[in-house]
Amino acid sequence: MRNGLFITVEGGEGAGKTSAIRVIIEQVTKNGYEAVSTREPGGIPIAEQIRSVILDKSNTAMDGRTEALLYAAARRQHLAEKVIPALQAGKVVVCDRFIDSSLAYQGYARGLGMNEVWAVNRFAIGDWMPDLTIYMDVRPETGLARIRADQSREVNRLDLESLDFHEKVREGYAKVIAMFPERVIRVDAEQRLETVLEQIKEILNQSLLRRV
Amino acid sequence: MRNGLFITVEGGEGAGKTSAIRVIIEQVTKNGYEAVSTREPGGIPIAEQIRSVILDKSNTAMDGRTEALLYAAARRQHLAEKVIPALQAGKVVVCDRFIDSSLAYQGYARGLGMNEVWAVNRFAIGDWMPDLTIYMDVRPETGLARIRADQSREVNRLDLESLDFHEKVREGYAKVIAMFPERVIRVDAEQRLETVLEQIKEILNQSLLRRV
Repeated sequence: MRNGLFITVEGGEGAGKTSAIRVIIEQVTKNGYEAVSTREPGGIPIAEQIRSVILDKSNTAMDGRTEALLYAAARRQHLAEKVIPALQAGKVVVCDRFIDSSLAYQGYARGLGMNEVWAVNRFAIGDWMPDLTIYMDVRPETGLARIRADQSREVNRLDLESLDFHEKVREGYAKVIAMFPERVIRVDAEQRLETVLEQIKEILNQSLLRRV
Repeated sequence: MRNGLFITVEGGEGAGKTSAIRVIIEQVTKNGYEAVSTREPGGIPIAEQIRSVILDKSNTAMDGRTEALLYAAARRQHLAEKVIPALQAGKVVVCDRFIDSSLAYQGYARGLGMNEVWAVNRFAIGDWMPDLTIYMDVRPETGLARIRADQSREVNRLDLESLDFHEKVREGYAKVIAMFPERVIRVDAEQRLETVLEQIKEILNQSLLRRV
């Protein structure tokens, strides 16, 4: 049984996911729901152990499919231990990146195949698909320029990928929207931040209204 | 490109897999092929790391699907680093347990679903399915009695499962045979060991002949 609402936020680097999540949490709380903000591996020891195998720098021989299976395993455990219990307790869970990141980054941009990555993640997730996904759509040039301008943000491994790779990620997300038109709502994140956040509030209020 | 031959040996506890593998290696070598005997995780550091997450006794919260994904990840890495290179070098690889164990034990006996476990393992394996699988079929009563009689064999976690569980594993294997009638050859492992091993030699010679 699920009584809560499961919201995920997706997008390329520098799309503004962090600001979006902050606004979602504020809005949800304002509407009287209890909100949980999380991201994988989410402090779940087993998921952290799995991530440390993925990120171990000595594991240079790691195969792309092994990596995808490990990400799916960490996702499952975070879902089972943190997300599902919160949803069952009637909370609104807001997760920074989820299955669509795997589809766009690993399935499409890394070339493992979206259908194949979907099959593996479907096993990991079961029936616990997000109720609503907000996709922050930004051109890689814009997103990467924002990251470079933001001194407070640490540059990560993905930021350093080629522009070509980030273009592919964006194409991957476009395919994700086509696969799940009901669930994924695209927000034009090229706009001024205030405008973007207003739109997200509006989307969210409609979602919360539908639940009453 | 694959030039070698990929053989897997499957069966419940006490079915005689170890003896079967010994005979297969002898027979393959006698026929002039180079043989590699292996089992997961096969000394592959990444696969060993994954196994240690699975077997970590403090990980009591591990979800069944997380475990299945981790097994598939370890399988992929062992395949990529050890099995595929050997097959590409024209060798005969004999592997103690492979995908069919996951289907019978996790998919069927543990109830995760054979089709679902198949989808995950298909991703892990890609096109590298075994060419030939020898399934040593034994009633659990017989197999477990053999294990108890064999002082040299260490009792493992699976040996301690209930008879009911081992019955389910056997039912699972029966379904595996129905799924892959061309690939999986059943050997009646209730017979005297000498008879069983003679039959395996015969199966193997026919397989090797077909390759000439």
